[in-house]
Amino acid sequence: MQENDLLESIRAGFATACPHVLIGPGDDCAAVRAPGPWGGVGAVELITTDQVIGGRHVDEQAAVELIARKAVARSVSDIAAMAGTPRWCVAAGALPAGMPQERAVALCAAIARWGERFGCPVVGGDIAAVPAGSAMVLTATVGGWAHPTRGPVRRDGARVGDGVWVSGRIGASLVSGRHMTFEPRVGTAAWLAEALGARLRAMIDVSDGLGIDAARVGRASGVRVRVELDRVPMNPEVGPGRAARLAACGDGEDYELLFTAAGDAALPAADPQGVPITRIGAVEGLDDVTRAGAVIVLEGGVEIDASGLGWEHGRG
Amino acid sequence: MQENDLLESIRAGFATACPHVLIGPGDDCAAVRAPGPWGGVGAVELITTDQVIGGRHVDEQAAVELIARKAVARSVSDIAAMAGTPRWCVAAGALPAGMPQERAVALCAAIARWGERFGCPVVGGDIAAVPAGSAMVLTATVGGWAHPTRGPVRRDGARVGDGVWVSGRIGASLVSGRHMTFEPRVGTAAWLAEALGARLRAMIDVSDGLGIDAARVGRASGVRVRVELDRVPMNPEVGPGRAARLAACGDGEDYELLFTAAGDAALPAADPQGVPITRIGAVEGLDDVTRAGAVIVLEGGVEIDASGLGWEHGRG
Repeated sequence: MQENDLLESIRAGFATACPHVLIGPGDDCAAVRAPGPWGGVGAVELITTDQVIGGRHVDEQAAVELIARKAVARSVSDIAAMAGTPRWCVAAGALPAGMPQERAVALCAAIARWGERFGCPVVGGDIAAVPAGSAMVLTATVGGWAHPTRGPVRRDGARVGDGVWVSGRIGASLVSGRHMTFEPRVGTAAWLAEALGARLRAMIDVSDGLGIDAARVGRASGVRVRVELDRVPMNPEVGPGRAARLAACGDGEDYELLFTAAGDAALPAADPQGVPITRIGAVEGLDDVTRAGAVIVLEGGVEIDASGLGWEHGRG
Repeated sequence: MQENDLLESIRAGFATACPHVLIGPGDDCAAVRAPGPWGGVGAVELITTDQVIGGRHVDEQAAVELIARKAVARSVSDIAAMAGTPRWCVAAGALPAGMPQERAVALCAAIARWGERFGCPVVGGDIAAVPAGSAMVLTATVGGWAHPTRGPVRRDGARVGDGVWVSGRIGASLVSGRHMTFEPRVGTAAWLAEALGARLRAMIDVSDGLGIDAARVGRASGVRVRVELDRVPMNPEVGPGRAARLAACGDGEDYELLFTAAGDAALPAADPQGVPITRIGAVEGLDDVTRAGAVIVLEGGVEIDASGLGWEHGRG
């Protein structure tokens, strides 16, 4: 089973034009236009779903608090990636029959707590047992509301001349354990949408690797995202050499915001909560749009295709 | 792992009062108030999530068309149970590594088709591989909009003197294969909400058994739902005897609507699409509210506690 091909088939299956569906599969979230209270048009809702698989995204023996946190936080990060505000969560768990009852209860309670903590209370759910030996599957679906004036920030809005920026620091998420404890950048994203408005052009959360996610923005936008390796702010666990820094661009699970903003947009070095904001490159035009994507530029000007730096997976 | 205890723990975890959450865990769907387009209040959104587990809810070797249909239809039926209109679906699949690629692709495409067919296009999704031997897990989350004037029809609105009604026919869903091919009663529910307004008091979809689901309405409403066995319309596969009819009230997976309406509400024998509508009992008061629930009344007046007729499971 190749997850990527399946992703494509999901997108291909979404052929219908439904006027209320503003964004279908292929971005961090879907976007749906709500009706107004008495008909007419309402707000734009963002919806995303993500699975945490035991033994793959989390160690099934890890603390339930951390497993629950990651399950909810990954979907919340997708809402942040479109500058939305998370408002509700529904959670489904397929739990192996051998899981002790106290652990299962603690897991459900922890998911409820983290939903509340991230602003999206768990309003419903489904629990089912799977045979002992099956992988645990936790599915968190989070809905939220797009920024009321900026609207959903898609990954396809980057324009030639934009600056390329990243929040926080990159790399070593797995070895540091941060992949279980990251803070989804909801506040940072809302601040960006408020401060920049339409000059906030494109955004994605760095879930699979700075390189591959930058390439996704470039491909979706039909441009080349150029990231200068020396400018990328690195986490302390990342070694000093060029090879280590380059590898960090493929580590993934950073859950930082990668965004492009109009070239003349000036941003402070940190958002009001102290999250670093760093300009790491620029968006370039292309004669041949089939070459759209991203490059990482090393000292001396050597360019490396960014699309190989990270993990492919099956998001739709 | 006891699914029912977990269900309780999910409900217990939902302690927060959030003004935008109108209905939390415990009904067929959650209900959330959307903001208006420029602030203010918007429509009421219904959200539900449900898992289909291979080897339990479906035969993993069944036709992908039927597996996909059931995965989407179960959640759509929950939207119908609150008289809502389904509008979007997000689907997540944890697929065993041994599943042939063509089958996985066909499954995703079939889910997209059924979402469209049921009025809730698949706007996003997530696909992940689980080790061969793990159970397949399909999670369909469906959102919709409550009836604009009646609002969400909850299971706790039954009042003394109401009539008790059911759509379609009951029983033998598994042996007949109807548990894979049922039609969620979205149209019937919308017609009821339109025709009866506030006199449509309480509603649930019969997923676990007419008996147990009637008892849920009774308990939630603090009343006794009294169902006369001889009045319950049975599917042709159900045998003629009293024992067979009683057993059919516990078969489950009928996905028909069980509802209560003001006692003087007159309804035709079928809705405009020809789905039978049958009055099967009445709602009675209780001196002792701790005895709220439902009874099935046999010929001769013998009453049987309905709460044992059906399947307990882990919905939240």
